[in-house]
Amino acid sequence: MNTWGNKLKISIFGESHGAAIGVILDGIPSGLPLDMDFIRREMLRRAPGQNALSTPRKEADEVEILSGVMDGVTTGTPICGIIKNTNTKSKDYNKNLLRPGHADFTGFQKYGVFHDFRGGGHFSGRITAPIVFAGAIAKQLLRKKGISIGSHIKQIYDINETSFMDCSISKELLNEISLKDFPVILDKIGEKMKQAILSAASEKDSVGGIIECAVLGLSAGCGSPFFASLESVISSMMFSIPAVKGIEFGRGFDFANLKGSDANDPFETDGEKIFTTSNNNGGINGGISNGMPILFSVAIKPTPSIAQIQNTVDTEKMENTTIEITGRHDPCIVQRATVVVECGTALAVLDSIL
Amino acid sequence: MNTWGNKLKISIFGESHGAAIGVILDGIPSGLPLDMDFIRREMLRRAPGQNALSTPRKEADEVEILSGVMDGVTTGTPICGIIKNTNTKSKDYNKNLLRPGHADFTGFQKYGVFHDFRGGGHFSGRITAPIVFAGAIAKQLLRKKGISIGSHIKQIYDINETSFMDCSISKELLNEISLKDFPVILDKIGEKMKQAILSAASEKDSVGGIIECAVLGLSAGCGSPFFASLESVISSMMFSIPAVKGIEFGRGFDFANLKGSDANDPFETDGEKIFTTSNNNGGINGGISNGMPILFSVAIKPTPSIAQIQNTVDTEKMENTTIEITGRHDPCIVQRATVVVECGTALAVLDSIL
Amino acid sequence: MNTWGNKLKISIFGESHGAAIGVILDGIPSGLPLDMDFIRREMLRRAPGQNALSTPRKEADEVEILSGVMDGVTTGTPICGIIKNTNTKSKDYNKNLLRPGHADFTGFQKYGVFHDFRGGGHFSGRITAPIVFAGAIAKQLLRKKGISIGSHIKQIYDINETSFMDCSISKELLNEISLKDFPVILDKIGEKMKQAILSAASEKDSVGGIIECAVLGLSAGCGSPFFASLESVISSMMFSIPAVKGIEFGRGFDFANLKGSDANDPFETDGEKIFTTSNNNGGINGGISNGMPILFSVAIKPTPSIAQIQNTVDTEKMENTTIEITGRHDPCIVQRATVVVECGTALAVLDSIL
Amino acid sequence: MNTWGNKLKISIFGESHGAAIGVILDGIPSGLPLDMDFIRREMLRRAPGQNALSTPRKEADEVEILSGVMDGVTTGTPICGIIKNTNTKSKDYNKNLLRPGHADFTGFQKYGVFHDFRGGGHFSGRITAPIVFAGAIAKQLLRKKGISIGSHIKQIYDINETSFMDCSISKELLNEISLKDFPVILDKIGEKMKQAILSAASEKDSVGGIIECAVLGLSAGCGSPFFASLESVISSMMFSIPAVKGIEFGRGFDFANLKGSDANDPFETDGEKIFTTSNNNGGINGGISNGMPILFSVAIKPTPSIAQIQNTVDTEKMENTTIEITGRHDPCIVQRATVVVECGTALAVLDSIL
Repeated sequence: MNTWGNKLKISIFGESHGAAIGVILDGIPSGLPLDMDFIRREMLRRAPGQNALSTPRKEADEVEILSGVMDGVTTGTPICGIIKNTNTKSKDYNKNLLRPGHADFTGFQKYGVFHDFRGGGHFSGRITAPIVFAGAIAKQLLRKKGISIGSHIKQIYDINETSFMDCSISKELLNEISLKDFPVILDKIGEKMKQAILSAASEKDSVGGIIECAVLGLSAGCGSPFFASLESVISSMMFSIPAVKGIEFGRGFDFANLKGSDANDPFETDGEKIFTTSNNNGGINGGISNGMPILFSVAIKPTPSIAQIQNTVDTEKMENTTIEITGRHDPCIVQRATVVVECGTALAVLDSIL
Repeated sequence: MNTWGNKLKISIFGESHGAAIGVILDGIPSGLPLDMDFIRREMLRRAPGQNALSTPRKEADEVEILSGVMDGVTTGTPICGIIKNTNTKSKDYNKNLLRPGHADFTGFQKYGVFHDFRGGGHFSGRITAPIVFAGAIAKQLLRKKGISIGSHIKQIYDINETSFMDCSISKELLNEISLKDFPVILDKIGEKMKQAILSAASEKDSVGGIIECAVLGLSAGCGSPFFASLESVISSMMFSIPAVKGIEFGRGFDFANLKGSDANDPFETDGEKIFTTSNNNGGINGGISNGMPILFSVAIKPTPSIAQIQNTVDTEKMENTTIEITGRHDPCIVQRATVVVECGTALAVLDSIL
Repeated sequence: MNTWGNKLKISIFGESHGAAIGVILDGIPSGLPLDMDFIRREMLRRAPGQNALSTPRKEADEVEILSGVMDGVTTGTPICGIIKNTNTKSKDYNKNLLRPGHADFTGFQKYGVFHDFRGGGHFSGRITAPIVFAGAIAKQLLRKKGISIGSHIKQIYDINETSFMDCSISKELLNEISLKDFPVILDKIGEKMKQAILSAASEKDSVGGIIECAVLGLSAGCGSPFFASLESVISSMMFSIPAVKGIEFGRGFDFANLKGSDANDPFETDGEKIFTTSNNNGGINGGISNGMPILFSVAIKPTPSIAQIQNTVDTEKMENTTIEITGRHDPCIVQRATVVVECGTALAVLDSIL
Repeated sequence: MNTWGNKLKISIFGESHGAAIGVILDGIPSGLPLDMDFIRREMLRRAPGQNALSTPRKEADEVEILSGVMDGVTTGTPICGIIKNTNTKSKDYNKNLLRPGHADFTGFQKYGVFHDFRGGGHFSGRITAPIVFAGAIAKQLLRKKGISIGSHIKQIYDINETSFMDCSISKELLNEISLKDFPVILDKIGEKMKQAILSAASEKDSVGGIIECAVLGLSAGCGSPFFASLESVISSMMFSIPAVKGIEFGRGFDFANLKGSDANDPFETDGEKIFTTSNNNGGINGGISNGMPILFSVAIKPTPSIAQIQNTVDTEKMENTTIEITGRHDPCIVQRATVVVECGTALAVLDSIL
């Protein structure tokens, strides 16, 4: 089902080559003035065609708000935003040739012959645009509650950047990164990452990477034990983003290499507040926030659409063949995915605290 | 909320030192004869006190079925199973000293002074016993549909085993591992892992590790795009298990090191079936199963309860102090967690296919 | 929350005087060809301005399908349909004068000063148009499964018609009624009802009534005991329709006047099928369909918008005053509500059998 | 599914002749001291065997609390309460003879041959005992928020009492009625009702009736438009109670006999508060409370278990036959159902305001 959330309900719809894509965001209280410039800026961070690193396919991604907002202020009722599809070239797609790494085969298995295969249909990464719209609204509400969410690219192919785990992070830093064309902490490393992307592109290939996300200002006591743990809620949203194949909180998989005496975060007090002197658990104990920054990383696989010849199956003839994907595709989507990760996180955090 | 699932509803309850813990499992069709020996065996795989590697605290963990079963066969109505708490020593716990790495602080932040702190209360790993009971029923129903679930320990501290990704897995292998006292593929490596655990124990320390899980026999077309993706459903269940801090599907975080041409799984057909010649995506594309084995790994942090002196805060006096956790604790819970991971997965998979 | 359903998810949005109203219908399987003429006809049954009995305010109510349909056939993904608001006269409404019987006061209490008060905003009966669109699709799927849903006006003010409980009903009869301008079994009684409506209109007053609905062809065994009883599911949908203030299944409130020996429906068999020889329970026992027609009635209150002078409060001045509602209003909405009741029922029944 | 609620989750389980019945109540905040005497008193109001008007079958109905409560105070985690089944006579029931008016046939259609038919199994009215336990807790929390819930018998067979709509109701009156052996406003009328019940009993027959329920102290602004309207939420809970076949809010079905000018509730202010001078809408406009008492009535059908010979079907032989239900049955359950209606309402109201 394409509805997510408990106290906040997010319902998305749309196909890459249909009339429009969109979202209903239900549960935003009345009285929030929407900063449309901010929303537009967030949408632009995800939009294709911004530079040489992504597909030259340009999409306006202008959101039309149909409900829930009067005179620029939320009314408390469901907010529906839609984005019309304008720049669609259906002829680029052949229904019978399965694109490796894509959902062509599984979509066909689930929906059968009436599956909308054009441009990935409902599976298209384009459907993350409504998530960004909804998340950009959530971010504004969170900001009013003193909560900031930001991210950076921690890895592209063989180029690694430092981690939020190991540097001093602040709302200012998160904001600064979000304004960058290529969202990294250290631009020098960012340049190397860009080179890696362009190099892959020149080989008709693609690369993936790792995005690290931080939530600052979330007070202790949010979340739940077990099924509605903060990790459960955030991860279920993250794996809703196409191409995400892994998530880890705090030290994550590196916990396997630690002993308990190193892994535990000791408590300390200044007499007024209680905090931990390390943050290996990424701000979450027992599924509940402990007041430290929430830190997690997600793995993004390389864009499956590459221009190289690949082995595949012709489903009509049921025989082995090859496919050469033409059209306009991203050699890397990690930089565009950062804002999707942030906005999905904003929705998850907001649902946990409403 | 401690209710999980869509077509299957699982509701858990209980505190480590309360009268009983338990679960309601709703959605199991009528007519499934329950193999109580199998359920008991699965419960035993999780139970403490089985060998020198875990706490000597022995718990019977005998499940009493209160409803939904008549003459050993499910009736189609909610199944409630409870486990009475018999071996509880509340005096081991001091309410005012926060145990690092535990949910003492966050539980207090969420529930306030009425929080049941005894032995972790509702946050106790003991609450996974009902999940095993429910999952053991789910496993039996899945088996009837030709689906098997198994797991092995991929890593304990600095000892690594091979991955299901890189070896030939079969239902027989999964079953064979599940019968082992220490669930690994290669017992020789298992011995080294045990040494690492005993070594940590001798230092009053603990270790964590990585569990890899496989689902065999799931046909293509199960799951959904976006919010109800198989990855979302499985991960939300996995992060309900205390101590799980990361999850990755297929190549997971290693995708960041691959190019698209290596990451994509090419399709091939034998004229009847379509399959992929590699399984980097862990059997899932676009959130939907593609007919290949579902493969994923979860990271388990080292047991936070260690006997070393640790820095912490006395919440009553609001001053810094130290804590020395006595009582009976596991130097490693990874081996006991394998069956919890499998049973949680069984519930997640069953919910996706019902 | 404005999302309803379990296996079928319906999310509605929109305000009477906003840009558009609409619905996402999620859970319709792929491969259903949409009969757009049928959908349009159902929409027209609800639309205002069709005759002298309803407001002369004419609305096109043309639905634009944004997703989930390709070449006229459902694809299995969420279907979004929107209806643009074209004919809106905001100046008819005064924010500070509470209209008796409307949600002006409660909307203000819930949403505060940012409440969209124009024409009832989100509370407008106009928001039932998306329910009709969604229900018209559900009806087509149900028809394929042999299930028909129809209704008739059982009472308008002091004019009563016979009940489905006491006459022989068939799919043909239900279809015949649905094609009528004024949906009654006996047109002669219908004429008297129309007179009652016109008479109320001439007094600047309004009338309500009772709608009886029937579901034919639903096989025995659908529904659940307790919380997901067919009565619970249908009633929760019916009370989502503005102006509905009561519902009864089978003999309903008349059961209070019966003895058990008269109330019970005796079972009988023809050797192949089991049925009941009466249908006092309206086709439902223990929350589950018994194979007989599902029969229930809903009470619709008189349209609250009347042109007479009424006592009310000016919320700005916080003083007592009077209101004279001008603008274009229905003296009776019962005839327009029949299709809303049917379509809501279609969604409820479909959710119970998917 | 036997889980209900949004912010409050109630999951019930159990069969009449199984080991135990029970409920998980999730969402009650920590820190509520449980008045066990009050809970016991509410349980007793529902329990059979209290007087000549109900079955002489005596059940202890002692609730055992397994979780969520420490030292008599709620901890904030799920509360599980169970009631062991002690007094069960399975031999009273014949699997093959369908009892008219019961769920024997529909249960068999839904669950098949493995259906637990004994004493109605999961369909038994006995399963309302856990609802009373959960609701008695909800009532205590509501009382702290100034909200009282009470009910009275408005009709038994041909004996009618006055309505809360037409008399002055207060918390004191509601409490007074709740303490009565036979919960009516006017004991003189109550005596006549008892006569009607005993008279039916003497004829081996049964009678039903109407219960009217009131919620006092609920402030304006609770509830939602459309799908989560107060009427939707309350009615979905009411139809979870076996034997309930109708519900109406305020004037309910009588609205059909009114004109808008009589039906509308005019607003008035005393300069500080806004209220309505009549309460035809039963305290709800647009699905949201308006600050007036919430008033509604539910119809209860006559107990289907009667000792007269009734026509039915033998499902094994698939032939027509008769059934003579022996055993101990209530000639009327209305008086016992009042507390179930109140407790169900308490859960519904609490879910709407949490």
